[in-house]
Amino acid sequence: MDRSSEVQTKEMDSRSMSSSRHHALNEPYVHKVGIPPKQNLFKEFKATVKETFFHDDPLRPFKDQTRSRKLILGIQAIFPIFEWARDYNLSKFKGDIIAGLTIASLCIPQDIGYAKLANLDPQYGLYSSFVPPLIYAFMGSSRDIAIGPVAVVSLLLGHLLQNEIDPINKVEYRRLAFTATFFAGITQATLGCLRLGFLIDFLSHAAIVGFMGGAAITIALQQLKGFLGIKRFTKKSDIVSVMHSVFASIEHGWNWQTILIGASFLSFLLFAKFLGKKNKKFFWVPAIAPLISVILSTFFVYITRADKQGVQIVNHIEKGINPPSVNQIYFSGDYLLKGFRIGVVAGMIALTEAIAIGRTFASMKDYQLDGNKEMVALGAMNVVGSMTSCYVATGSFSRSAVNYMAGCHTAFSNIVMSGVVFLTLEFITPLFKYTPNAILAAIIISAVLGLIDIEAAVLIWKIDKFDFVACMGAFFGVIFVSVEIGLLIAVSISFAKILLQVTRPRTAILGKVPRTTVYRNIQQYPEATKVPGVLIVRVDSAIYFSNSNYIKERILRWLTDEEERLKAASLSRIQFLIVEMSPVTDIDTSGIHALEELQRSLEKRDIQLVLANPGPVVIDKLHASNFADSMGENRIFLTVADAVASCSPKLVEEV
Amino acid sequence: MDRSSEVQTKEMDSRSMSSSRHHALNEPYVHKVGIPPKQNLFKEFKATVKETFFHDDPLRPFKDQTRSRKLILGIQAIFPIFEWARDYNLSKFKGDIIAGLTIASLCIPQDIGYAKLANLDPQYGLYSSFVPPLIYAFMGSSRDIAIGPVAVVSLLLGHLLQNEIDPINKVEYRRLAFTATFFAGITQATLGCLRLGFLIDFLSHAAIVGFMGGAAITIALQQLKGFLGIKRFTKKSDIVSVMHSVFASIEHGWNWQTILIGASFLSFLLFAKFLGKKNKKFFWVPAIAPLISVILSTFFVYITRADKQGVQIVNHIEKGINPPSVNQIYFSGDYLLKGFRIGVVAGMIALTEAIAIGRTFASMKDYQLDGNKEMVALGAMNVVGSMTSCYVATGSFSRSAVNYMAGCHTAFSNIVMSGVVFLTLEFITPLFKYTPNAILAAIIISAVLGLIDIEAAVLIWKIDKFDFVACMGAFFGVIFVSVEIGLLIAVSISFAKILLQVTRPRTAILGKVPRTTVYRNIQQYPEATKVPGVLIVRVDSAIYFSNSNYIKERILRWLTDEEERLKAASLSRIQFLIVEMSPVTDIDTSGIHALEELQRSLEKRDIQLVLANPGPVVIDKLHASNFADSMGENRIFLTVADAVASCSPKLVEEV
Repeated sequence: MDRSSEVQTKEMDSRSMSSSRHHALNEPYVHKVGIPPKQNLFKEFKATVKETFFHDDPLRPFKDQTRSRKLILGIQAIFPIFEWARDYNLSKFKGDIIAGLTIASLCIPQDIGYAKLANLDPQYGLYSSFVPPLIYAFMGSSRDIAIGPVAVVSLLLGHLLQNEIDPINKVEYRRLAFTATFFAGITQATLGCLRLGFLIDFLSHAAIVGFMGGAAITIALQQLKGFLGIKRFTKKSDIVSVMHSVFASIEHGWNWQTILIGASFLSFLLFAKFLGKKNKKFFWVPAIAPLISVILSTFFVYITRADKQGVQIVNHIEKGINPPSVNQIYFSGDYLLKGFRIGVVAGMIALTEAIAIGRTFASMKDYQLDGNKEMVALGAMNVVGSMTSCYVATGSFSRSAVNYMAGCHTAFSNIVMSGVVFLTLEFITPLFKYTPNAILAAIIISAVLGLIDIEAAVLIWKIDKFDFVACMGAFFGVIFVSVEIGLLIAVSISFAKILLQVTRPRTAILGKVPRTTVYRNIQQYPEATKVPGVLIVRVDSAIYFSNSNYIKERILRWLTDEEERLKAASLSRIQFLIVEMSPVTDIDTSGIHALEELQRSLEKRDIQLVLANPGPVVIDKLHASNFADSMGENRIFLTVADAVASCSPKLVEEV
Repeated sequence: MDRSSEVQTKEMDSRSMSSSRHHALNEPYVHKVGIPPKQNLFKEFKATVKETFFHDDPLRPFKDQTRSRKLILGIQAIFPIFEWARDYNLSKFKGDIIAGLTIASLCIPQDIGYAKLANLDPQYGLYSSFVPPLIYAFMGSSRDIAIGPVAVVSLLLGHLLQNEIDPINKVEYRRLAFTATFFAGITQATLGCLRLGFLIDFLSHAAIVGFMGGAAITIALQQLKGFLGIKRFTKKSDIVSVMHSVFASIEHGWNWQTILIGASFLSFLLFAKFLGKKNKKFFWVPAIAPLISVILSTFFVYITRADKQGVQIVNHIEKGINPPSVNQIYFSGDYLLKGFRIGVVAGMIALTEAIAIGRTFASMKDYQLDGNKEMVALGAMNVVGSMTSCYVATGSFSRSAVNYMAGCHTAFSNIVMSGVVFLTLEFITPLFKYTPNAILAAIIISAVLGLIDIEAAVLIWKIDKFDFVACMGAFFGVIFVSVEIGLLIAVSISFAKILLQVTRPRTAILGKVPRTTVYRNIQQYPEATKVPGVLIVRVDSAIYFSNSNYIKERILRWLTDEEERLKAASLSRIQFLIVEMSPVTDIDTSGIHALEELQRSLEKRDIQLVLANPGPVVIDKLHASNFADSMGENRIFLTVADAVASCSPKLVEEV
């Protein structure tokens, strides 16, 4: 290219120029900047792949083991139950039994309600609390998570499914639900197997807080149907449509009996929650309050026959455990693709929730959670679930917290819960016939209110304003438009933040902290003083194509600003520009080009470029690209202090 | 949320625990970590917006000026010609005239060829070298760029257009071309006005090198049609289809006369190029060689009437300057959207090329190029161009280099070139009738060969392997599939690199460099020694949601590795973990959570967390989130050396 040859001549000029200057800079200095030993390409590649996909070193326990031991370790890796079951004892058993019974009492009424959020019959909620927890208990590595259907995923799934099929077509709708569940499981397991678990990290904490809060309010609003006994209700989930439905139905009359039942039991539930929060000893009160409400209200409706006065009741829950549903999954046709798409979205969200919960409790008890293994477990449980009439199950915030507080020790509490659900399905379901829908609505409202985390939002506001925008974007997106749009907004803002970070990194002017040889940001340390004749700039990011040009221009602007200031104060001009490279962890070809351009500009202004403390990768690339040679290796120093020390003698001469 | 209240109690525990420990750590230390003065929210927001969109401080010259002066400055800002024209003098004029004539002689034959790449009649190439350079000369801020149609954009435009309309439908095809040009201009101007110029930085240098190289080969292959005199040729651009066409046409016979003319003049052009490269004095030889070839070959064909022997000739170029084409742009209907889509893609690529050229030459002469202003200029010129029968014009690599070497001083050389093109259109076009197509093919081949930058590719390989993958991805994508796919691959890989960077940042173990108080990466400085009982980890990136969890786990893994090593060697255990935060430029809520979780894990292992040198933003957020208080402010130090000094006394007690 004509251009590149031209650049080369220019470079050669600069090389000869700088070499003539080196003599003036030939000061002794203590330590050279280390150049790491040259690694061969394959090793380097292996290291990168390992750090990206296997940073948790999953094969470490297998090292230096016999073959049979490796087999046992392998089985234990896939089924952690064989690991923890060996140390299982009575005290753990006691804790797990109590925790299991507590979460079972909480999950049964929730399940019935959540199934309605997904537009499915109530028994499907219970089914999903029977098979998946069993599978998870064998394969999962979290000790505290409680598995089953959850509010947000149920809402999301219901919403996505009804966009494709009207829930009135029960059979097809259900088949699509199983298809979506199947692919949600496949997605989760695949991400785990391919060790792509880090993808879920791209949904930021702030976005999740906003999304969850918005989803909670949307779910609570949806419950107004059951809570007020409204018959005709919108299918949309945004707040405007819902409130329109609510107020439009006033004239048709709300059902006061329904409202009375709902309101009184909601007060009871909220009071129980308040009690549980106030005193940790009473953690079981909010945990069993829903079941008590169901029993009391069912009994009350049964004896008063309130259903004849328009109080809507559950009416019928199929008796017996999960029927098989393999043959109902769409493995071909139009709905295959639709189910796949819905499954991927629902699976990712379910995964995000489960991993967030798993990590929270793992850090509380200080054990490591293998994210990728966890995904395989969740995936397997949903795949099996889809074949046994379950819809997407995951870890539930509220039930996991109860599980933890009730003193669970292992995933055995999930087996206990599953057992109770089994008994319920086999024997008790007919008793739910007279359970008023208003109670289920009240239970869901009280459950999802916990997802609105105002404290977290306040903290986000305090810590990071941009995060807060992401949080509110997701929140209002969910409330005013739809769950998908809220999710899309959350992901987009999260990405925008990453891109902004790599496009506009920070730079800082450094000064000497008095009585030390330490150079720090003068904005942060106002007592730090600039060195006359020297401008020290720190670049706070890897220099990549996305920011190399900005960094170059920003450094030149710092220089221009400083020069103007010095001129106005008639002080001596800048002769050295020291770039502190400590935070520059990497540099690419565009970055090298930017440095070359920077040096060329500086030469025109008769200023010398000096580098301080480039990291191993950077110094390596500076050498590979010949930039280190062309600028003069003796202008690269270990510390800013060394660099300044080497510049000073030259300065004295001139001033 | 049940969970969050639980977390809170835990935190309170940790707070009381850590405060009881502080006494042991109550060493004097020289400097506190500075907390920058609290800024108000609006100021902070303003600063962020300014740094993101107005980092070049475009309004600076307007400060403290009178009203009339501001008006003049404003006009000069939009039309830089009014600025540089005032200092214009005879010596500059001489340089510009020579440069302008040289690039004119180069552009005329190129234009005719490039128009064919875009499936347009030859005069449209000339039109595009008449109006756009004029507009640019008034509005552009680069002094060296030469404006006109370029090979890659012509190919891309032609390819995208023929996907929508068969070029046989000349009128509609042309209308769509103008529509695309219009929207390309709008896109460019909009990006400039909204100051979103940084978006083009997301196409990395490596990706551009690969894309350009691939496009060059594709273009050269397309020229085989004219070069070999093949009549039936594929419309696809991938190498497989093209080679198939070439070899399938052997039996129909290539035209030996055509090949003879093409080959001999291609040799001449390449020799001229070689001569120009060898000796900078002869830069004008390759610049005027194309025009000489055209003249000689046209004359030759005219006297031998070789066109009767099957040598294809240009035949007809419309005489006269650009007809207006406003009324031909599709402002409604189906083609509006298609034109818009094509325009956006072509506009972005044209922009990337122009800005890259502008920056290269600006850095050679050390003047600042305002990227956003430049985009407005390019946009305006294409919008006006689309109304005067031009297709997308931009800065040309080869002609700009010639312009620079011929000694241009200002954009006036573009006006000179434009003038020559005007004269050509008015008077000389009929003379091109007998110009053989093979010559145009030879000129294009020799021009695009310069775009294949093998040296740059080698350098990229040396510097950054990942960049090289992006480069090759784009290259092979263009060659084997299509221009769009190559572009898509380039952008995707570039993005993947950014995401990888923020997901898997580097961490390093630090040791003390002997006879200093400097702590550095022990991999880079093998002579650096670890401090017994203390593990020092440096985190080399901002801690964000996308990497917070990885960083936490990675630090814990460093710790586990080190503990195992110490245990094996029966050395004293680790008691302090110092996290060097210098490169941590920012932290978000997820990052704070990760730190909290890290501290909780360390407490379980009876290890104290100590932070060294958090930056201004980080320390601010550590305080805002109360993490600084909960971990103990006296465990945050200015330097690693201070932190180690404060840990050591405690260590001595225990060991």
